[in-house]
Amino acid sequence: MPDNLIPRTPSAYAYPLLIKNLLFAPVADNPDQEIIYADRFRFTYAEFKQRVAKLANALTDLGVKPGDTVAVMDWDSHRYLECFFAVPMIGAVLHTVNVRLLPEQVIYTIDHAEDDFLLINSDFLPLIEKIKGRLNTVKHFIVLQDKEELPKTSITLTGEYEALVGAASDQFTFEDFDENTRATTFYTTGTTGMPKGVYFSHRQLVLHTLCTMTMLATSAEQGRIHQQDVYMPITPMFHVHAWGFPYIATTMGIKQVYPGKYVPANLLQLIDREKVTFSHCVPTILHMLITSPEFATTDLSNWKVVIGGASLPKKLCKSARAKGIDIFTGYGMSETCPVLTIAHVGNQDLDEDAEIERRCKTGRPLPLVQMKILDDRMQEVEPDGTAVGEITVRAPWLTQGYWKGIRNSENLWHGGYLHTGDVANIDARGYVNITDRIKDVIKIGGEWLSSLELEDIINLHESVSEVAVIGMEDDKWSEKPLALVVVDQTAEAVDAKKIIQHVKAYIDKGLMNKLAVLMKVKFVDAIDKTSVGKTDKKLLREKYL
Amino acid sequence: MPDNLIPRTPSAYAYPLLIKNLLFAPVADNPDQEIIYADRFRFTYAEFKQRVAKLANALTDLGVKPGDTVAVMDWDSHRYLECFFAVPMIGAVLHTVNVRLLPEQVIYTIDHAEDDFLLINSDFLPLIEKIKGRLNTVKHFIVLQDKEELPKTSITLTGEYEALVGAASDQFTFEDFDENTRATTFYTTGTTGMPKGVYFSHRQLVLHTLCTMTMLATSAEQGRIHQQDVYMPITPMFHVHAWGFPYIATTMGIKQVYPGKYVPANLLQLIDREKVTFSHCVPTILHMLITSPEFATTDLSNWKVVIGGASLPKKLCKSARAKGIDIFTGYGMSETCPVLTIAHVGNQDLDEDAEIERRCKTGRPLPLVQMKILDDRMQEVEPDGTAVGEITVRAPWLTQGYWKGIRNSENLWHGGYLHTGDVANIDARGYVNITDRIKDVIKIGGEWLSSLELEDIINLHESVSEVAVIGMEDDKWSEKPLALVVVDQTAEAVDAKKIIQHVKAYIDKGLMNKLAVLMKVKFVDAIDKTSVGKTDKKLLREKYL
Repeated sequence: MPDNLIPRTPSAYAYPLLIKNLLFAPVADNPDQEIIYADRFRFTYAEFKQRVAKLANALTDLGVKPGDTVAVMDWDSHRYLECFFAVPMIGAVLHTVNVRLLPEQVIYTIDHAEDDFLLINSDFLPLIEKIKGRLNTVKHFIVLQDKEELPKTSITLTGEYEALVGAASDQFTFEDFDENTRATTFYTTGTTGMPKGVYFSHRQLVLHTLCTMTMLATSAEQGRIHQQDVYMPITPMFHVHAWGFPYIATTMGIKQVYPGKYVPANLLQLIDREKVTFSHCVPTILHMLITSPEFATTDLSNWKVVIGGASLPKKLCKSARAKGIDIFTGYGMSETCPVLTIAHVGNQDLDEDAEIERRCKTGRPLPLVQMKILDDRMQEVEPDGTAVGEITVRAPWLTQGYWKGIRNSENLWHGGYLHTGDVANIDARGYVNITDRIKDVIKIGGEWLSSLELEDIINLHESVSEVAVIGMEDDKWSEKPLALVVVDQTAEAVDAKKIIQHVKAYIDKGLMNKLAVLMKVKFVDAIDKTSVGKTDKKLLREKYL
Repeated sequence: MPDNLIPRTPSAYAYPLLIKNLLFAPVADNPDQEIIYADRFRFTYAEFKQRVAKLANALTDLGVKPGDTVAVMDWDSHRYLECFFAVPMIGAVLHTVNVRLLPEQVIYTIDHAEDDFLLINSDFLPLIEKIKGRLNTVKHFIVLQDKEELPKTSITLTGEYEALVGAASDQFTFEDFDENTRATTFYTTGTTGMPKGVYFSHRQLVLHTLCTMTMLATSAEQGRIHQQDVYMPITPMFHVHAWGFPYIATTMGIKQVYPGKYVPANLLQLIDREKVTFSHCVPTILHMLITSPEFATTDLSNWKVVIGGASLPKKLCKSARAKGIDIFTGYGMSETCPVLTIAHVGNQDLDEDAEIERRCKTGRPLPLVQMKILDDRMQEVEPDGTAVGEITVRAPWLTQGYWKGIRNSENLWHGGYLHTGDVANIDARGYVNITDRIKDVIKIGGEWLSSLELEDIINLHESVSEVAVIGMEDDKWSEKPLALVVVDQTAEAVDAKKIIQHVKAYIDKGLMNKLAVLMKVKFVDAIDKTSVGKTDKKLLREKYL
């Protein structure tokens, strides 16, 4: 291959893709545009840039050096946004700690990431107090809070965020460095064993920002983001960069609203008061909003919501559509920065059912995302909307391994494609649809039955409030589906037989694999969830098998 | 600075930013979407991808190797689009030859670029016949034409494009290589002396594509590009990658129309028939369209046009607006790939005059574009819409020098910023407005008078058809403005005195520097233009001073 690299005159500036460039050269540069923290704080982009410089000075004064790791434990706030920029911009690594993990897991991730500094919301001090003697790497604790007086705690605090930022100079020269420098790290609990660390470079975050923005902005009508949107995350900022949207919103220069700890009434009030038009969340959170009393009286007809983290149930999609919400699916995972696909409706004239189906699909790949759906012979499946295989992917923003985890890293990247562990089909128009996790597929006598598809159908029964399907061992079939069902107490009484009949009706119409008839039903009080709100099938298997 | 680069597990794929990735992982992947060449040829994206592979095979079979330079002389065609992709995708360099140059300049650029292969439209064979003994590097000539039979020519032709492509296999494995590999080169005649070569890498073109798309797509309403647009260039493809839009359109996967040689009636017919919604051109071409007989009967109310290459005169902008055209300005130059700014109207409520003014501004910088407007003391000018300085810039897609031109390269990049040679002001909302070229500024007794601003005002006189202002030497003032005026024969008769009075009225209103009153007027038959349609002030100075 050619050695024909572009020559560079000595004075020419070789532009590195650094996070600071998103902040300093945004799409729409309006210094008066606002950034808002709940009902407590509002300031302009001009002030935001000053605050990022102040935070950089404050951190540097405390001894943060390039290459150090700065961990944050906070609810969604302007402070977190400032850390998204200032920490990587000084060459340090931002560790967004998952505050929903068990204490043992929090210790593990802080130790494993070798965090040097911990910025911690006072709400989480009790957790850290419990484990403090066991945090070996953290040199300084800085408290984040909304009130002025320092909290009572046995932790030795170096200072309070707002005081440190307030006292610092607003002049800071952010130097250039290699765009492949590590910018962020966090831990994923998606699989078995202890959490695994993923990490992303400045270059990866810049490219993820540009391509996600391009995908959303170029949509003709439905689900587009533009310079007049008002953004509010409803996916925590510790969860995969809040899917990258704080970077996107800042790059666009649009109004941003950070809601603090998620309380449905407050979220709806903020959407109403600040005229929020663009958000993202997991289905569970949307379900919480829909079932909260304030929902009926809040106008959500200008609200666009990307649903991710789990598939969007059609029932939930319909409820949201009935309210006028532009709801659609995005897909990705911790390992992928995360966004890989978006499910826009597209330009066809679709009836309401077909449109709902489109919105609930996994979506079409972003620009620069090369996706291959490989069957168990490592062949690409036919794009017929039926044949299934594992989603494997290449993109400019995928973690290049697990942090200090060589063996898992090689498994992840086996054959030069990142293996998502998600099983999906793809149709002729390029829409991917996930049917299951590879490990959740139920293998019945050599055939793959999707646990998620079966859940969807059971879920349509009006007496079913929630359901999870796992595979139970079977001597004859190797596995059989076991449906764990939570009954809707307000609906008509139901038994296992009725549910199996309900599924059978779909089998008879050719809408479900006939092997599903082998299912068993067990009624349970609740479906266990992981820290990020997904059905915890690992735990369910431990409990019910 | 930190040495904390992201580690890469051996099997991980380090994704290079290559042009092939724009083609193979577009925003909207619709294999049935069309690409059209005038009224001669239409095919799908699926066929287009096959044709790119066929062209790659045809070129490789002819001996094109990575690092070789493949020159193209053609009108806007599907063939040219195929070359935009296939040539760089095999690791070769695409030289887009400016067919409007003088024969001596064409020889110079082909020799200087060391072109190995020349793909040439039969219309240009007579030009090459004249100079053929003097082309030292070209090993093969391939003819491009719309008819089947080979033309009679004294040039030894290796073959005809369509026949070569037709005979080649549609399977080609495009290998990865370094994203900093040179992808394209072409020559700029914007300044004094022989044409200067600029060059761009794969990485630069990918980033230019993403950021220009982002800027255009995120606009809330006005001047946005989206997945339902139909694109047709009206800036030649040899002119700075047709401003990068063929790459943008292909990355978006939208319908594309290539019009061949520009004939106003044909262009309007294509816009009408193919429902073209997005184009770009220089003011001269738009003027040609507006004054062509078919203009009145063509519906252009869904047509968006970016104007570049020269400033957009308000009069022309008004004519276009009256027709319902969404017209606005883009800015860049050969050295900058080219796009640097776009003049969207933005979200304010503006009256028609203010909106026209906004559309005619130079615009606001694209994301990742860092622009500094420096006065003669190298200080940034105040953003007051008045103070002027030279536009200097950093972006990820600027030529890193002139090809084999060390001294000019260092001048271009003096101090680590690319010096555009354009004089501009910037307002509080970030809109840049070019007032002149540094070398065209008229220096009157220590003050800078913009020749372009004076031209704009003279142009508003209804008896003036065209005008150019240059500086003439003056013992007392050092320079004085000389206005070269072409009279509109259909309007009322005019003399120098009336024109000076017209300018004086603007001076009295405070809309023009009072030194403009020193101007002299000379009536001429025509204003000389450069090969790309700009006023040729160098030639005008030679002729009239």
